[in-house]
Amino acid sequence: MTGQEIAEAVVSEMWRSDLASQKLGMRVTKIAPGYAQVEMTVSGDMVNGHSTCHGGFVFCLADSAFAFACNSHNARTVAASCSIEFLAPAYAGDRLVAEAKETALRSRTGIYDVTVANQNGDRVAFFRGRSHRVKGDIIQTSAGDGS
Amino acid sequence: MTGQEIAEAVVSEMWRSDLASQKLGMRVTKIAPGYAQVEMTVSGDMVNGHSTCHGGFVFCLADSAFAFACNSHNARTVAASCSIEFLAPAYAGDRLVAEAKETALRSRTGIYDVTVANQNGDRVAFFRGRSHRVKGDIIQTSAGDGS
Amino acid sequence: MTGQEIAEAVVSEMWRSDLASQKLGMRVTKIAPGYAQVEMTVSGDMVNGHSTCHGGFVFCLADSAFAFACNSHNARTVAASCSIEFLAPAYAGDRLVAEAKETALRSRTGIYDVTVANQNGDRVAFFRGRSHRVKGDIIQTSAGDGS
Amino acid sequence: MTGQEIAEAVVSEMWRSDLASQKLGMRVTKIAPGYAQVEMTVSGDMVNGHSTCHGGFVFCLADSAFAFACNSHNARTVAASCSIEFLAPAYAGDRLVAEAKETALRSRTGIYDVTVANQNGDRVAFFRGRSHRVKGDIIQTSAGDGS
Repeated sequence: MTGQEIAEAVVSEMWRSDLASQKLGMRVTKIAPGYAQVEMTVSGDMVNGHSTCHGGFVFCLADSAFAFACNSHNARTVAASCSIEFLAPAYAGDRLVAEAKETALRSRTGIYDVTVANQNGDRVAFFRGRSHRVKGDIIQTSAGDGS
Repeated sequence: MTGQEIAEAVVSEMWRSDLASQKLGMRVTKIAPGYAQVEMTVSGDMVNGHSTCHGGFVFCLADSAFAFACNSHNARTVAASCSIEFLAPAYAGDRLVAEAKETALRSRTGIYDVTVANQNGDRVAFFRGRSHRVKGDIIQTSAGDGS
Repeated sequence: MTGQEIAEAVVSEMWRSDLASQKLGMRVTKIAPGYAQVEMTVSGDMVNGHSTCHGGFVFCLADSAFAFACNSHNARTVAASCSIEFLAPAYAGDRLVAEAKETALRSRTGIYDVTVANQNGDRVAFFRGRSHRVKGDIIQTSAGDGS
Repeated sequence: MTGQEIAEAVVSEMWRSDLASQKLGMRVTKIAPGYAQVEMTVSGDMVNGHSTCHGGFVFCLADSAFAFACNSHNARTVAASCSIEFLAPAYAGDRLVAEAKETALRSRTGIYDVTVANQNGDRVAFFRGRSHRVKGDIIQTSAGDGS
């Protein structure tokens, strides 16, 4: 399998059990080794007490893109810490796109930068995630015995 | 109105329009000036591709507690940036408690520290939010003339 | 004055009183609106208890580049918060280069990303600074009437 | 050796080779398992282009306190990432005190919170460090063969 095939198979496998991202209406629109693009529309249920999208849902979208990007090499990897800078509010009906890029990967630790923008290309948030590799893989990449 | 009365009235007002926190099943269990405690049960829909609670929902809970704490003085305040450290996974069925405390407030900028723990008292995450005061209040605190 | 001329004049003016950066042996090697590149050699006095460069000096270098970049528009601007990810150690004798880029600027708040690399191009640290504009300018840009 | 004796011996050993902290005029004033208090006077050489203490030196002080606290258990530990919030400027002549406390330690990763205050008790900065344990110890704690 190529790196690209592995990345696609990993995300398919993760997606099946990722009820959180499914229920939030996310869609994975691009995937590559160390890279993921995920989209989500802000629903009326995501609005907070200031009548804008609750920052937690912007974080959810960025965090999912981060998770797909950092697991795309097929080594099980979790978030150790994340930071998010809110640049502009998002509103109900906005179509948000999160693009996650691997900016560093050394041994078991990686850094991923995610930009969240709306349908007009306005940047809504910057997110930086630090990943930590744990034991295990997401998918099996060898065909096994004799096949 | 006392600071405590203001804090309670502000959170009541915010809560009414905070569909996000309502739909996630949160409950505000304590409120005081510069302080909020919010609870949420991890539902089956909050589970991610690693079979643990999607970090975004842990963030949502912490962020709501932060929002109630930083608006509790009745000056409209938004999140500028947040960081979260994930200490232990949360699982479907866990009852999470987020406790937000004001650790600094100077002019228009504040720092709030939020600890998220589960029903056993195990700490799940630390969250630090930087708030920025914008224009306006949440509630009216004077009765006005002639009323 | 063009934006480039302003940026250069601002950094010259800041540099004169910036004893900290001078004493640490820094040198500003490029400047542009919203951009700064600063270099520093790790001296024997910058070594910590692990025989590597104390992270604080890597931070100092990144922070100076951030300060020059965020003040380059001639609006007095200070650091509100910073985060740094250490990717690889630096050693005595290493020549470090910090490159600061403006990634967002809205009203009084900006986000700047700084990469610190060594003489081999290995990345030593990522730094993200959040700036806050305060009152005043660094230099006078108009000659005034009759002078 | 007790935990307290180990902590003191580790910091003595680290201090001997920590030229950076020595040259900056720091002094370790308290040490305990998972805890360190370090002091430093802001010298005239630490002043930046805004005539206040360069944030990098405030960071240096906090980072040293963090390093002593996270190594105090005698497992060699380095900084993975740090964030700092600047609350108030420091000035030449100020006596700064950094107090580092262990807020979480799990497997090879720890979280340490450091508060930096001046001689009047005003808080100058909050610092949060994430530590990563690497191989090796700082001191030998067993007496060896028969000696």
